[in-house]
Amino acid sequence: MTGESRLYAQYNRGVPELRKDPITGRWVIISTERARRPDDFRRQHFSRKGGFCPFCPGSETKTPPEVLAYRANGNGAANGPGWSVRVVPNKFPALGIEGNLDRRGEGLYDNMNGVGAHEVIVASPDHNSSFASMPTKQIEEVLWAFRDRIMDLKRDKRFRYILIFKNHGEAAGASNDHPHCQLIALPIVPTSVQSELDGSKHYWNMKERCIYCDIIRQEQAENSRIVSESHDLITLAPYAPRFPFETWIVPKHHLASFEDSGKQVFESLAKAISQLTARADQVLEMPAYNLLIHTAPINTRDENLQDYYHWHVEFMPALTKVAGFEWGTGFYINPTPPEEAARCLREAVLV
Amino acid sequence: MTGESRLYAQYNRGVPELRKDPITGRWVIISTERARRPDDFRRQHFSRKGGFCPFCPGSETKTPPEVLAYRANGNGAANGPGWSVRVVPNKFPALGIEGNLDRRGEGLYDNMNGVGAHEVIVASPDHNSSFASMPTKQIEEVLWAFRDRIMDLKRDKRFRYILIFKNHGEAAGASNDHPHCQLIALPIVPTSVQSELDGSKHYWNMKERCIYCDIIRQEQAENSRIVSESHDLITLAPYAPRFPFETWIVPKHHLASFEDSGKQVFESLAKAISQLTARADQVLEMPAYNLLIHTAPINTRDENLQDYYHWHVEFMPALTKVAGFEWGTGFYINPTPPEEAARCLREAVLV
Repeated sequence: MTGESRLYAQYNRGVPELRKDPITGRWVIISTERARRPDDFRRQHFSRKGGFCPFCPGSETKTPPEVLAYRANGNGAANGPGWSVRVVPNKFPALGIEGNLDRRGEGLYDNMNGVGAHEVIVASPDHNSSFASMPTKQIEEVLWAFRDRIMDLKRDKRFRYILIFKNHGEAAGASNDHPHCQLIALPIVPTSVQSELDGSKHYWNMKERCIYCDIIRQEQAENSRIVSESHDLITLAPYAPRFPFETWIVPKHHLASFEDSGKQVFESLAKAISQLTARADQVLEMPAYNLLIHTAPINTRDENLQDYYHWHVEFMPALTKVAGFEWGTGFYINPTPPEEAARCLREAVLV
Repeated sequence: MTGESRLYAQYNRGVPELRKDPITGRWVIISTERARRPDDFRRQHFSRKGGFCPFCPGSETKTPPEVLAYRANGNGAANGPGWSVRVVPNKFPALGIEGNLDRRGEGLYDNMNGVGAHEVIVASPDHNSSFASMPTKQIEEVLWAFRDRIMDLKRDKRFRYILIFKNHGEAAGASNDHPHCQLIALPIVPTSVQSELDGSKHYWNMKERCIYCDIIRQEQAENSRIVSESHDLITLAPYAPRFPFETWIVPKHHLASFEDSGKQVFESLAKAISQLTARADQVLEMPAYNLLIHTAPINTRDENLQDYYHWHVEFMPALTKVAGFEWGTGFYINPTPPEEAARCLREAVLV
């Protein structure tokens, strides 16, 4: 300890902890010095705005034509009402669907065309519903729509990754209150998925075991970060979460790709998402949140991929602002120990 | 292209571009479909709140005792007024200064004590000043304070990295309007710095050249992303920026560690920071922003570190919300091509 350092040792009232995510190697400060209980957050609540909604039944012509819709018993025609889930291209896509990748260098830089798909999955005809309030059966239909779109898009050999995510609430990036999710098909594997792939491959090469499966076993043995568990899935606060109340839903039976899951797993996942978002709504008072699926890349030649990677859902409520420190370092300060977050979510009374 | 994909090709009005950061390998979508000009952003302006400020002269007893202060000609006593720059421990530190690292495993998890330093550099006695408005000489004093604190803290062998950053404005994470910066000394090298180190080391191993030096040469030759240039520094929009108007200040003479810079570089850097923040204030109407220094790790045995790494400053205005897509993938959508950002900043008229 340096001279000056000694001066302020007296201001240190507790021992923060540094924890390393075993998959990506990312370190996180679990800082018990700062706000930590649900009541302590400057919360970014979900709130509804009014105005015209292009995702409501009757407004089908205000979106690009649907690429998929579920209509019970031929209930209505394409691009009219009567659907339960409807998938349309994003009207303002981040990527364009046409053209070749046209990979090229510019001196030491690398560049390619922004080719990809960007779609919106309208998750319910009911504007005022949410994953926490809609019937579990409705969420299950949304999951089937995810699968059907993945199955279609993975035939396009230009794509390497399909990301599905939900922004709920303005603070989490949603520009429309109507329950919806987004899908982006990308010609590259994004860096943070790549770091999960690298980490889990490294582990498999050492041990010939899946790191996610090992995590499940250790979490079941310790039983301090589990929120809930069913036959098929475990909902848990990860050991080294980046964000307060970050929660993962992980299938208990090893599987690399979300879309290869069986009907029973989709049923269980619908229930797990319903319960997790309802628990968060209760504990954190209707937070804005991001929810996303991490699944294996597509159109890859990596033979061991099916062995070492393990799909899962990540849930992140928007409770704190991410500032310079996190951007600069990729190093996160989380004021809520995951054991405490899991306890709060576990003890929420579901009505 | 799949059948459904073809349906919405008509909605694709422009070719977005995928660009790869040559250092970290991070891909970015430059999406010209979306908001892109300065006027198009939902801006997160800097605005002042009132109330008591513990960083103002006369309130020195409201902070932990200072670890460093510059007082001209013995102007006043320690922990009283009369200083031009003052460094104090953060009253609510994310890390604690006392104790051993005590590295340990918990099954497959890794854990250590959250040992580190967390300090506040009060950048001026004038509550209402900012980097854009204060005299360049004052910024230079702040840079000397950074250096002095780094020189002291790097003698502590527990630390591997010292991060210096500034959150300006509430939207960028600042909780106090008084101009100040923060310093965190860490016992680990954070992941995003590590990915710069890995990338630049890989490049050096291939070519025995510094990738940052090569980037400077290519940028000077292309001359499309340079904001300004002096004898010592170049201010530029990087080829694959994560954020609109992200800007880097890079020393033109190779050097791995910020604190090893000479007096002339500190003078030039003070001027470059003053000008860049003034340009941003004009073009983006007083944005909130994060500014940070990426410098080499300390207490490392990597012999080539001084050859392959190159310190620099990163500046990121808070213009857009980061949502699920970015968190889930580490893959960024940036609506402003860096060539356009550089042009806007370059053309700003400095008063």
